Parts: sequence; structure tokens; C-alpha cells
Amino acid sequence: MTPNIQMSDVSVDCVVFGFDDSQLKVLLIEQEKAPGSSHEGKRYALPGDLVFLSEGLDSAARRVLNELTSLDNVYLEQFHTFGDPDRVRGLKDVEWLRNFRKNPDTRVITTGYYSLVKMEDYNPKAASFASDIAWWDVNDLPDLAFDHNHILSKGLKALREQFRHHHIGFELLPKKFTLSQLQELNEIVLGEKLDKRNFRRKITKLKAIIPLDEKQIGVLHKPAQLFEYDVSKSED
Amino acid sequence: MTPNIQMSDVSVDCVVFGFDDSQLKVLLIEQEKAPGSSHEGKRYALPGDLVFLSEGLDSAARRVLNELTSLDNVYLEQFHTFGDPDRVRGLKDVEWLRNFRKNPDTRVITTGYYSLVKMEDYNPKAASFASDIAWWDVNDLPDLAFDHNHILSKGLKALREQFRHHHIGFELLPKKFTLSQLQELNEIVLGEKLDKRNFRRKITKLKAIIPLDEKQIGVLHKPAQLFEYDVSKSED
Repeated sequence: MTPNIQMSDVSVDCVVFGFDDSQLKVLLIEQEKAPGSSHEGKRYALPGDLVFLSEGLDSAARRVLNELTSLDNVYLEQFHTFGDPDRVRGLKDVEWLRNFRKNPDTRVITTGYYSLVKMEDYNPKAASFASDIAWWDVNDLPDLAFDHNHILSKGLKALREQFRHHHIGFELLPKKFTLSQLQELNEIVLGEKLDKRNFRRKITKLKAIIPLDEKQIGVLHKPAQLFEYDVSKSED
Repeated sequence: MTPNIQMSDVSVDCVVFGFDDSQLKVLLIEQEKAPGSSHEGKRYALPGDLVFLSEGLDSAARRVLNELTSLDNVYLEQFHTFGDPDRVRGLKDVEWLRNFRKNPDTRVITTGYYSLVKMEDYNPKAASFASDIAWWDVNDLPDLAFDHNHILSKGLKALREQFRHHHIGFELLPKKFTLSQLQELNEIVLGEKLDKRNFRRKITKLKAIIPLDEKQIGVLHKPAQLFEYDVSKSED
């Protein structure tokens, strides 16, 4: 960004969730102390930035995420817009950012986006004003800049809501999966153990879950049946 | 509004749904041809307006709805923020509105709010730049200003989503209600007939629906059992 580019008083913040075999994590950037900034030392934040005056919100979210983390082609879903009158008013703790804004003394409205990716498929690299980047356990987060802890927890709620009601996340599993793998993914995202019988009863009612006439390969003891997800039969 | 009040480049639009015994409707305002406006004659729109620079989004939605429709104490829920780069760019068709904006040549980002009310409980009155106001059948809508048809349909989707998954709307029924009344409300909002047995099976599983040891009064033939909703037992 150069100071002659005018930014709107609207920003985007991205809550990128990642999972591995056992845990749900979230991608945070580290910012060095910026010139004119009042905070001490490093601080952690969601990848986010101001939106250009003529830029679409969805494109801005993709651009900002890419600029700060090098991530590309990440599916981002808008979940909430935060517009409290006092939020990040005048970005007081980052004086230099004021140069970019037309109304530097007013609050910044921000639109939150979330995403869920398989951590092994992505290799985030810090860039722009992010000095470092890391996956953090959602249950053990540091204090974040601005109101980012609040935005993050609202994003987590939105993700879980989608999981509970829309059974998303199939694209995160192998093409052919067992019901145990599906249950594990749900348990990692929802952060709770699920009752096996209830879960299976609910899942097998979904028309989009196709039972295959195949079993797991390479499993000696009781190989489990495999299933496929047919998005064209999804009821949502 | 006077031209010395600075507005942000962000607006709010309210999709207020109303229902009576048989239909789902939505509240639209009529605008006379504004000075400098390029549209011909009257046009219909959602109640919406620009947000003050120092105003919270939620308060702005309540203020704007009240200013245009005289409605007060309406529960409003944010559902989506619309930020296409071309939306309402420079509000070209309402030149006089440009005086209120700092960046009059750029697009306006708008946050949509929805609400559901019992029509008999409210008496909307047109005010400010609304010259008239009316409830419209959601299945028979006129062409609306800007992208308001799109915003409205997205609001309807959000309302139905909440109904389907969260069983909201109990505060719109009498305190003690029959399952038929509850089914009718759901059918009106969802715009589809529901299977009685499936509906009852699903509803009676909810811990928040309390069966009472009482039946309808004043019904001679087979009075139905009454139920209450206990919000403290809601699972959401």
C-alpha cells in the first residue's frame, strides 16, 4: 500500500480454520511493532486489512488473505459484519495507518469471513505487514489485536452452526470415506464427542451420503464400509 | 438529514416480514421521484439509508426503520453484507444524496437486517423520504430500487434457514398454542405444506416444547392439546 491509495472505512478479517488428525486450529499473523503504534512488541491478529474504495468485499477478503499469508484459492464464507461505533476508532494504536483513510477519526466497520482447510494442503507464508504466521489451537489462543478475539469466536460459532445443520466438510475427507472418519472430522470441528449410534442414524438418513459396495483396503481387522458424498443430492 | 451531517459509505436495509393467518408479507416503502433522480415516477424499496460516521450498525438499522416506517422495538437480525464493487455506485439516480457522502463516486456497502412480526401488532406509517408504505405478498413483489430484490430474497432465505434449524417464532404465537397453530406458522413462513406426522415427530422431540394438561377452550369438536414454549430449555 502507498499513501496515495484511498481505502474505505471498511475492512475484512479472515478466520481460517485448519484441521489435522486431531485438532482444530486457526491461522494468526504476528505483527511487529508498527511505526507510531502504541502497543508493545509483537502482537497477534487475524489476517485482515482495509478494503479499497472500489473493491468488492469478497475479492478484498481473498486479496488480503493472499497478501498476508500467501494462501490462494481458499474458500471463504462471509459470516458477520462488526460495526460498533467504537471499534478500532481512528486506529489510534497504528498511527501510520491513518494516512490511508479518508475519515481517519471514525470507526472501522469490518466484515468477517471464515474458511476451513486441511492443514497439510496449505503452506502459509508471512508477507506484507505480517512478520510471522502460525496455526494456533482454538482452545488456547493469545490476546489478539483490536476485537479480533471476539470476531474469531463468532467465526467459530458460525462454522460449527454450518457443520451441525448443513453437514459441510465432505470435501475435506478422502473421496471414499468411512463413517468413523466423518465422525472424527465432526468431533474435531465441533469440539465434542458425538454419540456413535445417533450420529450414524442421522448421517445415513442424508440422501447425499452414498453407501458403496466397497470396504477399506489395507485394514486387516474388520475393514469398514466406504461411503461417497454426492453433492447433487444434497438437500440444502 | 441536513447536508452538513457526514454519512459513511455504508448503509443498512431492513427486510421486515409480517404474517397474518395465511400469508407471509414484506414491508416496502414507496419513494416519490427525488430531486435529481433519474427514475420515473414512484418506486418501491426496502426501508434503508446511509449510516452516520459514528453510529453502530445495529442502532442505524433501528433508527432508519423508525424514521421511514415509524416502527419501533422491532427485533432485527443481521443476515448479510452486500459489497459488490458496482452496487449503487455514486447513487447516480439520486443525485441529491451525493451531498451527504464523503466519497460520492464509490459504491455503497450495505448490511441487511431481517425481522418477523405479527402484522396486527404493528401499524407502520410512512415518514421521511418514504411517501407511502405497504405490506406486499412475498410471492408477488414489484421491481425494487437498486439491488433490493436480491437483498430481499437473501433475507427470506436467511429467515427460512433460522426457522428450519432453530424453530424460532414461538413468540409470534399465543402463549399456549396447539401443534396445528405451530405448523401453520411454519407453513406460512416456509411457503410450503409440511407433513403433519413428520412435523409433530420433530417438534415433540424438542425439550423446549412443553405439553400442558390443558385443551383448547371454546372448541366443541375434539379440542386439541395445548403446548407452551420454554425458552430456558431451548437447545440452541
